[in-house]
Amino acid sequence: MKNTGDEKTVQIPGFRFAGVSAGIKPSGENDLALVYSERPAVTAGLFTTNRVKAAPVKLALRRIASRRGQAVIINSGNANACTGRQGLRDAEEINTVTAKELGISPGLVYVSSTGVIGTPLPVEKIRNALPRLIKRLSPLSLNDAASAIMTTDTFAKVCSREVRIGGKTGTIAGIAKGSGMICPRMATMLCYIFTDISVRPGALDRSLREAVNRSFNRLTVDNDMSTNDTVMIMANGLLGNKPITSRSAYYRRFSNALNEVTYSLAKMIARDGEGATKPVEITVRGAAKESDAEKAAMAIAGSMLVKTAIYGKDPNWGRIMAAVGRSGAAISEEKIDIYINKVKVVSRGAGTGRDKSAGSIFKDGEVAITVDLNAGRETARVLTCDLTEEYIRINAHYRT
Amino acid sequence: MKNTGDEKTVQIPGFRFAGVSAGIKPSGENDLALVYSERPAVTAGLFTTNRVKAAPVKLALRRIASRRGQAVIINSGNANACTGRQGLRDAEEINTVTAKELGISPGLVYVSSTGVIGTPLPVEKIRNALPRLIKRLSPLSLNDAASAIMTTDTFAKVCSREVRIGGKTGTIAGIAKGSGMICPRMATMLCYIFTDISVRPGALDRSLREAVNRSFNRLTVDNDMSTNDTVMIMANGLLGNKPITSRSAYYRRFSNALNEVTYSLAKMIARDGEGATKPVEITVRGAAKESDAEKAAMAIAGSMLVKTAIYGKDPNWGRIMAAVGRSGAAISEEKIDIYINKVKVVSRGAGTGRDKSAGSIFKDGEVAITVDLNAGRETARVLTCDLTEEYIRINAHYRT
Repeated sequence: MKNTGDEKTVQIPGFRFAGVSAGIKPSGENDLALVYSERPAVTAGLFTTNRVKAAPVKLALRRIASRRGQAVIINSGNANACTGRQGLRDAEEINTVTAKELGISPGLVYVSSTGVIGTPLPVEKIRNALPRLIKRLSPLSLNDAASAIMTTDTFAKVCSREVRIGGKTGTIAGIAKGSGMICPRMATMLCYIFTDISVRPGALDRSLREAVNRSFNRLTVDNDMSTNDTVMIMANGLLGNKPITSRSAYYRRFSNALNEVTYSLAKMIARDGEGATKPVEITVRGAAKESDAEKAAMAIAGSMLVKTAIYGKDPNWGRIMAAVGRSGAAISEEKIDIYINKVKVVSRGAGTGRDKSAGSIFKDGEVAITVDLNAGRETARVLTCDLTEEYIRINAHYRT
Repeated sequence: MKNTGDEKTVQIPGFRFAGVSAGIKPSGENDLALVYSERPAVTAGLFTTNRVKAAPVKLALRRIASRRGQAVIINSGNANACTGRQGLRDAEEINTVTAKELGISPGLVYVSSTGVIGTPLPVEKIRNALPRLIKRLSPLSLNDAASAIMTTDTFAKVCSREVRIGGKTGTIAGIAKGSGMICPRMATMLCYIFTDISVRPGALDRSLREAVNRSFNRLTVDNDMSTNDTVMIMANGLLGNKPITSRSAYYRRFSNALNEVTYSLAKMIARDGEGATKPVEITVRGAAKESDAEKAAMAIAGSMLVKTAIYGKDPNWGRIMAAVGRSGAAISEEKIDIYINKVKVVSRGAGTGRDKSAGSIFKDGEVAITVDLNAGRETARVLTCDLTEEYIRINAHYRT
């Protein structure tokens, strides 16, 4: 299992990709992506749990029941959310016309949208761009698809791993977008993962759920949950391995590689959090229960005061203590140790005085906060980023 | 029941106040306040539910069991939180020395602290300032006490109401501080309320809980809960009315006036939210249950995306819909109506197009968001403020 290195050349046998500008974004940047698998793929998906769901998510929830898929069409610049019945009809039309142009069943096509909420989807623009999009499909264009799904992202997010399965080398590659309205469950994000490894539907679903729980569900930029969140994985089986089941010897190996892909993509999202200058990884250990560790870590990650302190390179551990205290986790104040980038700033609930060397604590670009509750053996890790004036500027003026 | 108007001259019979600089704040601004009642007062208090509690809060929790109090000494500039055993000894020493200088029992003195977490309390400075503080005590100095408890507040918060009780006119006056780390339960705030009206301990406690639930517990600036939150009320009975009980005819009148004082103070805190340019009042109505209304209103008030949009004068109702959808409240997307400052921007879950006139929607300084779930008859109202670059600047550099 290794990183394939130069992400620019990632290919997954049987998958083709494209990205073009359909004119949805006023900037003229690419805003329409297509993914196509030569053959129908075993497909699993997880979608926003927000009660307000975008039209394409409602449609995808119906499609995913078949556990099969062959194409995904994704537009950025418009979320097709809070668009009423017309929004659903628009998503269905994109679905139908894409299936027709590709010559496949509409039941095998998924539609995704991301961008501004509450504006009707410009269906004509997408339909007009479709022939050009299909013509561009290429095994070498994963990055083009990754770029076309960006909204406020500042870089395209691509990650891949190779996995040895029964003497053959399979590939798992994922693309993701998202840098604002990021919060479990789940972040405002779209993520599509592709593999040529043959995996049975049940095993694929289980491994996706596990991977998402440890990555995107433990990621927060701004505590807001979107109406469009989607994570999908398509396994087209072109590797020709014996299909992996939940009981296969190879299940864990596949699952570990998938975890690495989703965690890496989650980390890229944290790094690219709107306005962020630093990705932050929070580890809470020594908890009596994993849920205590998760509550404490999420409370720290969600604290605007902690995040602004990190931005200001201020090892203000009092704010970390306050967040842990209100998290609902079972804690004893006088047992807590806190480390910022390995410097122990709190010992048994009181300051060590080592936070005076603030400059050296924050000399690296990344920030790791470790809280030891000294109450047990459970751990949780959560990703976030710092909070800056630029986040405010981006979100105060996003639509206008 | 009316506003006493010029808050500068508010007096509450039997209460005296003072504020001085003890040199705790590097700026040299006033940072030590004292409140003294001529006679022991019936006292009720509510304190932070954060599991990490400041030393003075731990001490106050012991004191309040007696339901009596005669003096409160409050310092700003240092929270005396996360200061270990020494912190508790320091709070006890301030308690003892204040009682001694005032010539009253230590059991009747409350200590409060607010400011930076994790730094030892400068006990000597407080002790040295104490004689000067006591000398300054005056019935006319409520505002001096209100100023001395400020941290990042930009104005002192004072509010009073007169109440007719049995042919006599009593006064309820309150002071509060707090503009960051503001979140239920409870906001980072200190609030002290004084009245000459005679109220039985049980009735005073009940009316305080009711008032706090509808004001400070429905107020969020940044979703963070402090280690020091305190709301206290002292009723010294100098009005000479027949003591009010929970079953008195005058209970509701007293309670309503107290509600007005706490709600007004909560609104001042929202207006003075760190970096805020606009106070925001969120009303969710038409809920099947009050808890649904509260969840939805709190989710909107806690959304950084909603708050930055308001700052940018962008009636971005999609973010309000998304917040309601993730709030956990029972809702039907297609039933929701949303008004921003009385302009209907969403009807039955979809945009009305009236949000184009953004300039006129936000022409007033205050923002009122009303969400009608059209699912029942329950309502909840929550206070917050917009989120600006200035919040980030204040909190990125608060300690340094």
